[in-house]
Amino acid sequence: MNYRMIAKIVGRVIGIEAVLLLIPTFVSLHFHEGKCVNSFLLTIVLAAAVSLLFFLISRHGGKKIFSKEGFVSVALSWVVMSLIGALPFFITREIPSYIDAFFETVSGFTTTGSSILTDIEAMSRGLLFWRSFTHWIGGMGILVFMLAFVPTGEEYSMHIVRAEVPGPEAGKLTAKVQRSSLILYLIYFVLTITEITALLICKMPLFDSVVHAMGTAGTGGFGIKSTSIGAYSSAAQVVIAVFMFLFGVNFNIYFFILMRRFRVALKDSELHFYFLAVTFATLTISINIRNLSVYADGFGHALRDAFFQVTSIASTTGFTTTNFDLWPQYSKTILIIIMFMGACAGSTAGGIKVSRVLILLKTIKAEIKHMLHPHSFNPVMINGKTIQKETLRGTLVYFAMDILLVSLGFIVISLDEKDFVTTFSSVITCISNVGPAFSLVGPAGNFEFFSPLSKITLSILMLMGRLELIPMVILFNPTTWKRRGQF
Amino acid sequence: MNYRMIAKIVGRVIGIEAVLLLIPTFVSLHFHEGKCVNSFLLTIVLAAAVSLLFFLISRHGGKKIFSKEGFVSVALSWVVMSLIGALPFFITREIPSYIDAFFETVSGFTTTGSSILTDIEAMSRGLLFWRSFTHWIGGMGILVFMLAFVPTGEEYSMHIVRAEVPGPEAGKLTAKVQRSSLILYLIYFVLTITEITALLICKMPLFDSVVHAMGTAGTGGFGIKSTSIGAYSSAAQVVIAVFMFLFGVNFNIYFFILMRRFRVALKDSELHFYFLAVTFATLTISINIRNLSVYADGFGHALRDAFFQVTSIASTTGFTTTNFDLWPQYSKTILIIIMFMGACAGSTAGGIKVSRVLILLKTIKAEIKHMLHPHSFNPVMINGKTIQKETLRGTLVYFAMDILLVSLGFIVISLDEKDFVTTFSSVITCISNVGPAFSLVGPAGNFEFFSPLSKITLSILMLMGRLELIPMVILFNPTTWKRRGQF
Repeated sequence: MNYRMIAKIVGRVIGIEAVLLLIPTFVSLHFHEGKCVNSFLLTIVLAAAVSLLFFLISRHGGKKIFSKEGFVSVALSWVVMSLIGALPFFITREIPSYIDAFFETVSGFTTTGSSILTDIEAMSRGLLFWRSFTHWIGGMGILVFMLAFVPTGEEYSMHIVRAEVPGPEAGKLTAKVQRSSLILYLIYFVLTITEITALLICKMPLFDSVVHAMGTAGTGGFGIKSTSIGAYSSAAQVVIAVFMFLFGVNFNIYFFILMRRFRVALKDSELHFYFLAVTFATLTISINIRNLSVYADGFGHALRDAFFQVTSIASTTGFTTTNFDLWPQYSKTILIIIMFMGACAGSTAGGIKVSRVLILLKTIKAEIKHMLHPHSFNPVMINGKTIQKETLRGTLVYFAMDILLVSLGFIVISLDEKDFVTTFSSVITCISNVGPAFSLVGPAGNFEFFSPLSKITLSILMLMGRLELIPMVILFNPTTWKRRGQF
Repeated sequence: MNYRMIAKIVGRVIGIEAVLLLIPTFVSLHFHEGKCVNSFLLTIVLAAAVSLLFFLISRHGGKKIFSKEGFVSVALSWVVMSLIGALPFFITREIPSYIDAFFETVSGFTTTGSSILTDIEAMSRGLLFWRSFTHWIGGMGILVFMLAFVPTGEEYSMHIVRAEVPGPEAGKLTAKVQRSSLILYLIYFVLTITEITALLICKMPLFDSVVHAMGTAGTGGFGIKSTSIGAYSSAAQVVIAVFMFLFGVNFNIYFFILMRRFRVALKDSELHFYFLAVTFATLTISINIRNLSVYADGFGHALRDAFFQVTSIASTTGFTTTNFDLWPQYSKTILIIIMFMGACAGSTAGGIKVSRVLILLKTIKAEIKHMLHPHSFNPVMINGKTIQKETLRGTLVYFAMDILLVSLGFIVISLDEKDFVTTFSSVITCISNVGPAFSLVGPAGNFEFFSPLSKITLSILMLMGRLELIPMVILFNPTTWKRRGQF
C-alpha cells in the first residue's frame, strides 16, 4: 500500500475544505455571528495544519497508485473531511456532542439530510449555511471538485472518479477527467443558480433560497425550518419539487443537451423509467391520500404534496411539505420502495439507482429465457447497447451487498430497542441518503435519540451509500491493511 | 407448447392426490366424523374424475417435453392440487369461504403454516389431519413422490425434479431420478416415524404426535391448538425443536451418512453455516429476552424458548411456544432476518436457503478482490469445489428476483391498509414459507382479516417460495402462453 500517496490525496482534500470553509465564515461575518466566525477560523487553521502535515509526510512518495489506494483515499478523505467539518458545530456548542456533530456533518456531505437537531430555528445562520453547503459539496463530490479545479497532472484521477461518481458504469465521462469534471461542475452550478433565481421569484428570502437550492442540488434535504419546505408558498414548493426531479436525472443527459444531441438525451431508458416511476407513484399516492382531512380543500393540494414527496424521496433529497408518516400504508409502502431505489446514476442522488434496477429487471428476464432455452443467447441491452458481463455481475453483487449491509445495520440499530419501523426505515433512509423515514425518524421526528453506537453505524451507512459501498467496505476490510495480504 | 404432456402430468398428480385423500378419510371414519367422511369422498370422486378427464385428453400426446413444459407442469400441478385439496374444508363449511380454504390449503402444501382459522380447536379431527398431511406431502414434493412411486419410464423426470427440488444446484441426486426420489422419501419417512416415537415417549397423545411430526417433517407449522406447541411439555418442545433443526438440513447429508461417508457429511460448509447461525441467534436472543417477566423462572426457560423459536423460524416451520411478537426488537430483527434466509438447500425448508447466502457472501468477497486486482482470478469455492459461473449468476438473479417479488407483494398487501409491520412481515413469511410473522399476523394473530386480493396474492407468494420462484413466474408470464413467442 502506498501510504504516502493516500496521505497526499487526503491532505489535498482537507486543504480544499479549509478554503471552502471561508465561504460560511463570510456568511457568519455578514450576520455578525462572532462566535460562529471564530469557530470557522479555528477549524480552518486546524484543517490547514492537518493538510500541511499530510503534505510534509507525502512529499517524497511515488506517484503511482492502484485501485486499492484509490478506494482507500476516497473513503478516508470523506471520513476525515467529516471529522473536520463537524468542528464548527462542536466548537460553538450549538451541537454539544461531537458524535452528534459528526453525524450531522456526515449526513450533510453524503447528502442524506437526517438530522439530530431538535430546534433548527435556534441555530446561527453561519452554521445553517455550512450545513447546507456540505450538501452542495458532497452532491457532486469533493474529489471530483479537486480534479476539476486543482490541476495535478497525475495519473490517479481515473481511480478516484471511479470510486466517487455513482452508477454501475462510472467512467463514461472520464476519458478526459479534468475537462469532464469541470463540465459536471458547470452544469451543477448553472442549475443551482437557476433554482435560486426561481425561488427568489417565488418571493423566498435570499438566504433561504440559497440554502434550499444547495440542499436541492446535492439532493441533501437539510432545511432551516422545523416544518422544512412546508413553511413556504405553494409556488416555491413546486419549484423545489421540479428541481429535485431534475437533480435526480443523470448529468450525462444535460451534457448531451448541451451538445445539442437531444435525441440521444430523450431516448434514454433510465430517464424513461425514472419519469414513469415518479409519475406512477405521484398519481397513485395522490389518489390514496385524497380523502385525508388535510386535503379537503381539493385534489390539487393532494397532488402537489404527493408530487413533492415523491420527487423528494425518489431523488433522495428528503425535504418535506407534510408529515407523510401519517399517510395511509399504500403511500408509505411506495415511498419506502422508491427510497430504496433512488434516482438515476450519474446524478447527485443516492439509493441503488434506477439504472441498476433496470439492469436487474432485464437480467431476470434474460435468466428466465435462459432457463427455458439453455442454448439461446440472451444479451442484456440498455439504450441499444449490450451491457458487459462484468457490469452485470457488478450490479447483481452490488444489490446483494446492499441488502446484506441493510441487514447488518438493521441488527445493530435494533440493539437500541426502538420499534420495528423506526429501526428498519432509519437504516434504509441512511444507506439511500434520503433523510427522513418513518415512525420516530419520520418528518416530525429526528435522529437525536439514537445511542452513540447507532449514530456511528448510521454515519457509516450514509458514507457507504454515498460512495456506493465498495470504497467504505474496502476501508473497513482488515485485509486491506495487511502488509502482504491477498487484497 | 406440448399441452397434452402438461395435461398428462397434472392429471397424474391429481390422481395421486385422490389416493392420498383416502388417508384422512380413514382418520375421519375412525373419529366418527360423518360429514367429514362425506366431504373427503366427494372430493376423491371429483379428483378422480378430473384426473380421468386429463388422462383422456392427453392420451395421444408426444412424450417429449422441454424445460418450459416441465416448469409449467409443476406450477400448474401445485395450483390444481391446492384448488382440489381445499374442497373438504369448503364442503364441510368448516371454512365457509372458498378463498380462505384455498389459502389454507396452499399454506399447507407449500409448508408455510399461515392460517386463516380463528378457532382451531373447533375443527374436526379429519380436517386437522388433512391440513397437516398436506405439509407432509408438500415438504418433499408431490411430483418427487410421483417419480418415486409411479414408475413412468419417461424422460421428463429431470425437468420436474429441477423445478420442484429446492436449492441452487438441484440435480445432484438426480442421476437416477427414480432411485434417488425413493431414497429421499425413505429418509423422510424414517425421520418422521422417529419423531412420532420420540413425541409419544414425551407422553404426547398419538393423534397429536402424528400431526405435529408431519408438520415438523414438512417444516410446515400447522398446529392443532391455539397456543401451538406451547400447550405441550418442555420435553416435547425440545424434541420438536431438535427435529425442526434436522428437517432444515440438506437431505444429501443424511444420504452421505447412510453411505457411511461421515467425513463428507460433517465437512459441509452449508451445514456449518446453518449450525452457527442457529447457535448465534439462539444465544443472543436468549440473552436479549432473559429479563422479560415470563422468564423470571430462570435462564433455562429463555434458552428453551429461544432455541425453539430460532429453529422454528430458520427451518421455516413456524410452530410457536410463546408469542415472540412481544419480544424486544433485537430478537425480532434476528428472527425476520433468519426468516428471510431459511435453512439448507435440499431440505424441506423455505427461504432463500443457506447455500445461496453462502454463495452470495463468497461472490461479494470475490468481487471486491476483483475490483482491487482486475487481472486476478477469483473463483468462488464451496466445499472445496469451484461453483460454476452459471450457478453464481443464477443465485444472484434468484436473490434479486426474491427482493423484487417481496416489493411487489408489499405494494399489493399495502392496499389493505394494515400497519407497516403486518404488511411487510406477512409478505416475507409467505414467500419464505414460514407461517406466523409479526403484529397482526404474529403468533397470537392469523391471516383471516386480509382481503380476498391479499389472500390470493399471499397464496401466489407461498407457491412462488415453495417452488423457488421460476416455475410460478413462468406460469404467470404471458409470453409463455403465446403460440410462437420468444419464450
